[in-house]
Amino acid sequence: MPELRKDPIVGRWVIIAHERARRPHDFKVAPAGTSSKVCPFCEGNEAMTPPEILAYRDHGGPDAPGWRVRVVPNRFPALAIEGDLDKRGDGMYDRMAGVGAHEVIIESPAHHVTAATLPESAVRDVLWVYRDRLVDLKRDRRLVHGMLFKNVGENAGASLEHAHSQLIVTPIVPISVWEEMTGALEFYNYRGRCIYCDMVQQETSVEKRVVLDTPHFTAFCPYASRFPFETWIVPKSHESHYENIQGPAVDDLGHVLHQVLGKLEVALDSPSYNYIVHTAPFDHSELPHYHWHIEVIPRLTKVAGFEWGSGFYINPVPPEQAAAFLREVEATPPAGVPARERPAGRPQPVASGTS
Amino acid sequence: MPELRKDPIVGRWVIIAHERARRPHDFKVAPAGTSSKVCPFCEGNEAMTPPEILAYRDHGGPDAPGWRVRVVPNRFPALAIEGDLDKRGDGMYDRMAGVGAHEVIIESPAHHVTAATLPESAVRDVLWVYRDRLVDLKRDRRLVHGMLFKNVGENAGASLEHAHSQLIVTPIVPISVWEEMTGALEFYNYRGRCIYCDMVQQETSVEKRVVLDTPHFTAFCPYASRFPFETWIVPKSHESHYENIQGPAVDDLGHVLHQVLGKLEVALDSPSYNYIVHTAPFDHSELPHYHWHIEVIPRLTKVAGFEWGSGFYINPVPPEQAAAFLREVEATPPAGVPARERPAGRPQPVASGTS
Repeated sequence: MPELRKDPIVGRWVIIAHERARRPHDFKVAPAGTSSKVCPFCEGNEAMTPPEILAYRDHGGPDAPGWRVRVVPNRFPALAIEGDLDKRGDGMYDRMAGVGAHEVIIESPAHHVTAATLPESAVRDVLWVYRDRLVDLKRDRRLVHGMLFKNVGENAGASLEHAHSQLIVTPIVPISVWEEMTGALEFYNYRGRCIYCDMVQQETSVEKRVVLDTPHFTAFCPYASRFPFETWIVPKSHESHYENIQGPAVDDLGHVLHQVLGKLEVALDSPSYNYIVHTAPFDHSELPHYHWHIEVIPRLTKVAGFEWGSGFYINPVPPEQAAAFLREVEATPPAGVPARERPAGRPQPVASGTS
Repeated sequence: MPELRKDPIVGRWVIIAHERARRPHDFKVAPAGTSSKVCPFCEGNEAMTPPEILAYRDHGGPDAPGWRVRVVPNRFPALAIEGDLDKRGDGMYDRMAGVGAHEVIIESPAHHVTAATLPESAVRDVLWVYRDRLVDLKRDRRLVHGMLFKNVGENAGASLEHAHSQLIVTPIVPISVWEEMTGALEFYNYRGRCIYCDMVQQETSVEKRVVLDTPHFTAFCPYASRFPFETWIVPKSHESHYENIQGPAVDDLGHVLHQVLGKLEVALDSPSYNYIVHTAPFDHSELPHYHWHIEVIPRLTKVAGFEWGSGFYINPVPPEQAAAFLREVEATPPAGVPARERPAGRPQPVASGTS
């Protein structure tokens, strides 16, 4: 069972993953990147993963081919789904059991697809799956927050090449989410408005940092971008919880996310990147001060001692310059890629199990 | 002139380094690691750096051979030493000019030395230089905090191989320092004691996370270590500002830092790592709640989307296991390395200029 431990100074929690423990000599050789072995995420290899939790299918039954998106438990989970929280002290420190969920969302049955070559309908399927998993997991009273994220490429920490994202649901609110919510609440208490709504308004009016503007979303390089080509996708209407997203917004977000990732892929020649869905904790009803959004972070620069120690970032590309470039780039998928588009709209999920 | 911009939500500042700006295609190829070109930090190549600010010398004059440690301005500074802060708003955002100091401390005249092969006397020279530079720069009323750090190896963000550390002095207190100070103050207000003093007491009494214990310092793997083999070096007597360090403590710290880095080098086969000196801002007198210390972070694991989004870290090596291993490992320098030891004690600095 992994363990959660709290840093007593800044209040940051860490997951000490005993099960993953390695001997020091395991670190002497850098871990290999993408492997050329048989991929457990490819259609036909369903038996190589734990039994699926959810799938959207065109045909077939659980753990068989025929799916478009498939959710499985992570085979090496950071947190364990069974058990009590067992909160206690350890001398001056605080700890609890590493209870939570760690799931993998396999975004396509095919191995060689990327953001630019996936059809938009597949991106929409993934966005619906995100919603469905949050709705399901928030019923577990031990858990309070779900973090959806995607790691692409070795520099972004991906260990498998096949397109996938992940969901980690934790029994405490992550400190970064807490800091965002606290900052947004301060602004709300002072101004009486949501700071993200204000940002959308300012960005769409000055335009110079906007990458893409659609009826439901604004994608822009934030004023204080930490990283070159960092891009945020923010809904135009106020909504604190991703899982409350509605059909027309999903249709639009499928387009925006596909475009933004496609532009980055073309502009930066398939960079490593992360994206993270920032959304409110489960245990709050609709919040007037917090606003869910997606942060996309290309991993082009190394984070070094100064950044670790200070929390300052050094960004060599002004966001205005990054946005101007991304606006111009066309997110054209390479020729010859099958575009198995389906009409927009909520797919009929075929749940193949429960968590 | 670089620009400082503030994230309006969490209050984090970033440095937008216009001078370093690169075109997007510059990012298409990963930056090269250590270069095989002529090293500007080697003895004899003094003309390849900007004029030195400070040097400890056995002989010779400014910008000539004969030095043991040498401080020069960074040729590509993140911040500019000249200019006014020029604080102003930009719509809803806040910015100021990127004023500050960015210096490089060249730790040895020889190219092929590492923590394990440098003599302890050279480490002590570096520790005295750290002090001298902070004492000098804190006289500049525009600047409020000095961050000393070292990047070793490509995964830790080092771009040059020659042993060096850096100092970045900023016109605002970095958010991570602020968070540490805030957390430590809360503890102090509640308990009436310094939390770092309490940690030293608990760690030396339970022993299982201690790597090295000397008269003046305790080196231990912290309870909530974010990274495998993360090690903190904390002074046993309370002191908030590194620059107030005294002779006996420098002598001891030279030994402890040399041992800890040497152990990591042997145990993990010369890993990439960062170390960071955490010290109080300039504009405070001695603080009862804050305690300077050094955090050493081997860079063995990749930081991915979950960590970026949540502030949670997943550490596969329990600190008790890491400490047990590091206690046993001997930080023996390879045979045949010249050990040009000098007696302990404050060196006579030869200042070769002023900042």
